[in-house]
Amino acid sequence: MAGNTYGTLFRITTFGESHGEALGGIIDGCPAGIALDFEAIQKEMQRRKPGQSAIVTQRKEEDAVQFLSGIFEGKTTGTPIGFIVPNTNQKSDDYSHIKDTYRPSHADYVYEQKYGIRDYRGGGRSSARETASRVVAGAIAKQAMPEIKINAFVSSVGDIFIDKPYQALDFSLTESNAVRCPDQATAEKMEAYIKEIRKEGDTVGGTVTCVIQNVPIGLGEPVFDKLHAELGKAMLSINAVKGFEYGSGFCGAKMKGSEHNDLYNPDGTTKSNLSGGIQGGISNGMDIYFRVAFKPVATIMQKQEVLDNKGNIAEQQGKGRHDPCVVPRAVPIVEAMTAIVLLDFFLRK
Amino acid sequence: MAGNTYGTLFRITTFGESHGEALGGIIDGCPAGIALDFEAIQKEMQRRKPGQSAIVTQRKEEDAVQFLSGIFEGKTTGTPIGFIVPNTNQKSDDYSHIKDTYRPSHADYVYEQKYGIRDYRGGGRSSARETASRVVAGAIAKQAMPEIKINAFVSSVGDIFIDKPYQALDFSLTESNAVRCPDQATAEKMEAYIKEIRKEGDTVGGTVTCVIQNVPIGLGEPVFDKLHAELGKAMLSINAVKGFEYGSGFCGAKMKGSEHNDLYNPDGTTKSNLSGGIQGGISNGMDIYFRVAFKPVATIMQKQEVLDNKGNIAEQQGKGRHDPCVVPRAVPIVEAMTAIVLLDFFLRK
Amino acid sequence: MAGNTYGTLFRITTFGESHGEALGGIIDGCPAGIALDFEAIQKEMQRRKPGQSAIVTQRKEEDAVQFLSGIFEGKTTGTPIGFIVPNTNQKSDDYSHIKDTYRPSHADYVYEQKYGIRDYRGGGRSSARETASRVVAGAIAKQAMPEIKINAFVSSVGDIFIDKPYQALDFSLTESNAVRCPDQATAEKMEAYIKEIRKEGDTVGGTVTCVIQNVPIGLGEPVFDKLHAELGKAMLSINAVKGFEYGSGFCGAKMKGSEHNDLYNPDGTTKSNLSGGIQGGISNGMDIYFRVAFKPVATIMQKQEVLDNKGNIAEQQGKGRHDPCVVPRAVPIVEAMTAIVLLDFFLRK
Amino acid sequence: MAGNTYGTLFRITTFGESHGEALGGIIDGCPAGIALDFEAIQKEMQRRKPGQSAIVTQRKEEDAVQFLSGIFEGKTTGTPIGFIVPNTNQKSDDYSHIKDTYRPSHADYVYEQKYGIRDYRGGGRSSARETASRVVAGAIAKQAMPEIKINAFVSSVGDIFIDKPYQALDFSLTESNAVRCPDQATAEKMEAYIKEIRKEGDTVGGTVTCVIQNVPIGLGEPVFDKLHAELGKAMLSINAVKGFEYGSGFCGAKMKGSEHNDLYNPDGTTKSNLSGGIQGGISNGMDIYFRVAFKPVATIMQKQEVLDNKGNIAEQQGKGRHDPCVVPRAVPIVEAMTAIVLLDFFLRK
Repeated sequence: MAGNTYGTLFRITTFGESHGEALGGIIDGCPAGIALDFEAIQKEMQRRKPGQSAIVTQRKEEDAVQFLSGIFEGKTTGTPIGFIVPNTNQKSDDYSHIKDTYRPSHADYVYEQKYGIRDYRGGGRSSARETASRVVAGAIAKQAMPEIKINAFVSSVGDIFIDKPYQALDFSLTESNAVRCPDQATAEKMEAYIKEIRKEGDTVGGTVTCVIQNVPIGLGEPVFDKLHAELGKAMLSINAVKGFEYGSGFCGAKMKGSEHNDLYNPDGTTKSNLSGGIQGGISNGMDIYFRVAFKPVATIMQKQEVLDNKGNIAEQQGKGRHDPCVVPRAVPIVEAMTAIVLLDFFLRK
Repeated sequence: MAGNTYGTLFRITTFGESHGEALGGIIDGCPAGIALDFEAIQKEMQRRKPGQSAIVTQRKEEDAVQFLSGIFEGKTTGTPIGFIVPNTNQKSDDYSHIKDTYRPSHADYVYEQKYGIRDYRGGGRSSARETASRVVAGAIAKQAMPEIKINAFVSSVGDIFIDKPYQALDFSLTESNAVRCPDQATAEKMEAYIKEIRKEGDTVGGTVTCVIQNVPIGLGEPVFDKLHAELGKAMLSINAVKGFEYGSGFCGAKMKGSEHNDLYNPDGTTKSNLSGGIQGGISNGMDIYFRVAFKPVATIMQKQEVLDNKGNIAEQQGKGRHDPCVVPRAVPIVEAMTAIVLLDFFLRK
Repeated sequence: MAGNTYGTLFRITTFGESHGEALGGIIDGCPAGIALDFEAIQKEMQRRKPGQSAIVTQRKEEDAVQFLSGIFEGKTTGTPIGFIVPNTNQKSDDYSHIKDTYRPSHADYVYEQKYGIRDYRGGGRSSARETASRVVAGAIAKQAMPEIKINAFVSSVGDIFIDKPYQALDFSLTESNAVRCPDQATAEKMEAYIKEIRKEGDTVGGTVTCVIQNVPIGLGEPVFDKLHAELGKAMLSINAVKGFEYGSGFCGAKMKGSEHNDLYNPDGTTKSNLSGGIQGGISNGMDIYFRVAFKPVATIMQKQEVLDNKGNIAEQQGKGRHDPCVVPRAVPIVEAMTAIVLLDFFLRK
Repeated sequence: MAGNTYGTLFRITTFGESHGEALGGIIDGCPAGIALDFEAIQKEMQRRKPGQSAIVTQRKEEDAVQFLSGIFEGKTTGTPIGFIVPNTNQKSDDYSHIKDTYRPSHADYVYEQKYGIRDYRGGGRSSARETASRVVAGAIAKQAMPEIKINAFVSSVGDIFIDKPYQALDFSLTESNAVRCPDQATAEKMEAYIKEIRKEGDTVGGTVTCVIQNVPIGLGEPVFDKLHAELGKAMLSINAVKGFEYGSGFCGAKMKGSEHNDLYNPDGTTKSNLSGGIQGGISNGMDIYFRVAFKPVATIMQKQEVLDNKGNIAEQQGKGRHDPCVVPRAVPIVEAMTAIVLLDFFLRK
């Protein structure tokens, strides 16, 4: 019960189904006196929105945020920020074909088993549309910590990946292409591949890498609320995420201590940074970086077996919207959750 | 502040430094009426304990748990279970050599930066010794859900890994060798490699895989407290962990939707299980499995540069105890945190 | 930071200022499958609404709840219930006269000191209008526990009080008069007195008593989350509340143990019930009853000294709406918070 | 489930039964670098201890606190402070006579109903002995905020009460008599009365008043976590408490707004302080004061009817220790919980 809140002092609680009237949330604990840049918030919403380019999807969502409280004369007041994001075209869709069926690798079946009832329209609460509310909160959290730089980007799509360390990338190029990959050559390969996948009516997974710079020393609370443990939970709570690693990650598991240890400079910085900016669960002032794995989304435009609530297996042709690769859209969501986690630790410090 | 508690209804709070008088914890929310098997608890403590075999370490720890409350005539009473694990030999060690120095990739530096003070003896609070308290709580959580089978094992050490799906393994063999790898041939290679590493005074990382069987449908709370998000946080809160993946994990990020989707059987089970037993954050009754990456521990018995609190870099020869590969000892800890997470979701259901 | 959420498993988070666009909230953890009676919810909103009769106030509020999520085909789905209550006439009021002034015994001054900024319109977040969101959540909580009977009523206004034990009252009469006092003779005196107070442009305090019947044994969690401790917190979080007592309350502090002890009947019920249905923080199945003290609201229609933000004291004539006695309107709020507390303990059990 | 923790950032979790091996707790979130005065802590333990004088009780408790972690070279380190208080004479008592019986107005019956099992020795977890752990945490919290002055005292016993405002009292006299009443004449009457009650084998209730001075402006979090709401919960969580009021309290419910409003001085202080130092849930810098009602404890040395677990009513003669009036011992507990609440809000600010 009650899993729709994230955070201790900076808290976001979200509500809303894919095809209900609106989704939204309450941001509690936002520091007072921040002059909000509403355009910047809306820009983040546009980044998350489906239908941004030929490679992604066709749904036209307005995703216009309406703030209802907690802001006075353009500034945060320290009281909770309530907001809604209306679902403008929810009535136009027909979901009767999935009313009694459970699509493979969707949450249809488990929701019905857990709750005995489900809003089957467009995935209901399990739809990634819920992340719109997170993006609002994250955009505000970013504005509360302007000194910290959070840059996420697509680091792989299928087998195509950026073959460079993040230090060799120019993050200002991330938004210059539809896949949000700051390495232009790789981006082109990814785009071509996604178009191909889309023609097949299929989908493909990928990874998002996130780099946080200019982090103060001391964020994170031992022992259970380690900084990377909360970042991991936050990322794993995003739809379609299957894995999280930070610093040396799974590669680190193959290394020797003599290779892995980050030797110090006299000023307390380290020569290497396999620790990923976090030691003992606490930020050490170096860059924090982590990588998040997204599975291919389950909605494909091919014929597929589905189960119905009578126990019958039948073939069903996928229809409706189709996002061949969600990873580009996941970039602003990863950034948003990162900002939420960091601001919460800032306030707990 | 205040990061030493895990859980919502079943909660473990731990305390204790490596070389203080004792460590321990409070288990709150344990269901009443469970007839505890104290030998089984102590056995889990032995599994976690350093010094179990030639390949691991030399410290002799008793790790005898003393229960102080919450148990009456052998049964849990529903009131909090307080317990301590005395540190029997903490006085015999000499840690003055690290008093003013920060060892690379340890938490020495960040603790001192964050708190302005640190208990430098043996890593203090950042020592993995803290996990002894988790093992106590996990052992009790296991006994509260006897029907659920939790089996963790070492799946890789350095570059050596089990080249089989978990279904091909016999978990009853995990404890038959010192590395806790149920595949005997692989276990032998791992043992040989760890002995070599030890001779070098070095350490090596590895991975632990955990398989949970006989899980009821419906555990996990959307949207932030997804079952795998909490499992991920719990694992990432264990010392030395750098990554977490469940089901298809990072491999899933390379796949197509048409390959990745788990088709249903008429009874609601699935033919494949790339979802890893969790869909939309909720258990679907299939096996849950995940993999955890551990870095090589930072304490090595080689000469290494350290930083002191005056900003000087100096060489220091590692001394004291040395654990060439912590992954075997991590197995019971992974199981313990898994049990804690599951029982909490059981009670929240 | 972050004090706008109540509850552990059944949680209500509220947002909204008195004169913002809307207030509202998110109800998380509501059990699935409850067929909601929307009329009953709206009826509770009407009970809370100002302007219900000649004795109270003039503001016309629609207080129409709009549900945005968590409900499908009339039933709760187990996902969070987001809702808003638009502030229909917030633009018509003029609050410029209090922009730079702090009214006595209002929260104007402390909000500005704490946050450095405040929404001065109508009290902003500190307005009792926030309780509208609580009433929505409480109305739903009541429907989730139809067997439990929660009856609050006005037990005193100024010096006028009901001179009978609650057992002698007919709760079905509570709504039969404007003061919500089930004792008709006392109600008449109260009404007359409130009218007099209103003519003076003054206000008066009072008490609300709440009786909970048909409570199962075992609600409440020792030691900090005792049932009466949470009821107390919930009541004290309502605007204008100055005190809380349950069972024998402050009178009990004058008694001897030999008078106060509740002797048992063979079935586990007790002959007397000075314990107020709670022993050791846990419900014992007997009636729970408690009393809540409300101060006279600070907004009076008389000349009064105010402080401005330059440190000047000046006289100001109260204007705008005026509620001579809030206690009748507090009755549904007390019931709502009671239902919220009880449902949360039900789910934690 | 899981109600044994109090606080958000400064958290105390307690464990322990009256007659188990030890009770204790974990203090999490204590700021680092506080040089603890251990004598002062032990002095608070002595104040809480039964058997301090002829008027109270005979039990000899050592109540020596043993700190196990979180302190290094006399200073707090920011890590959790684990501590135990051994129960030195728990074995010498014979509780077999209450094994199968439920004493009136004790928690025996509800614990057994709720948990299906109970540690019947001396009240088990429901014993006021648990408050020893709170006193430890409170004593440390006090030392973390040395500027704040917290003074509790006995304001009434039975019908005998201090007939003066707290401003007329000299708090330095509180400890000068056995009843902890700073008004010497009243104290004498109370003592005489308690001795009489004791001879009768009876008990009597009373009230404790607490005054907090030198509080900074801005503590408390609207709307649910109002400062007085948390103080109320904290007090109501203490054994035997039946009521809480702050500022004007229940008397305020009889007043008119024109009498009750606290007019400002130019510096933001107020001429009167019926608000009790808290407005809108936030401290305003004025003295905070509140009053707590304690019932007469249920253990009396007279013949009384008890219920047994077969449904029989029988007479039983009270035996064992007997505390005719717990209110003097409650004084340090009230102060401890006050300090815990305040420090938590300090850190949340």
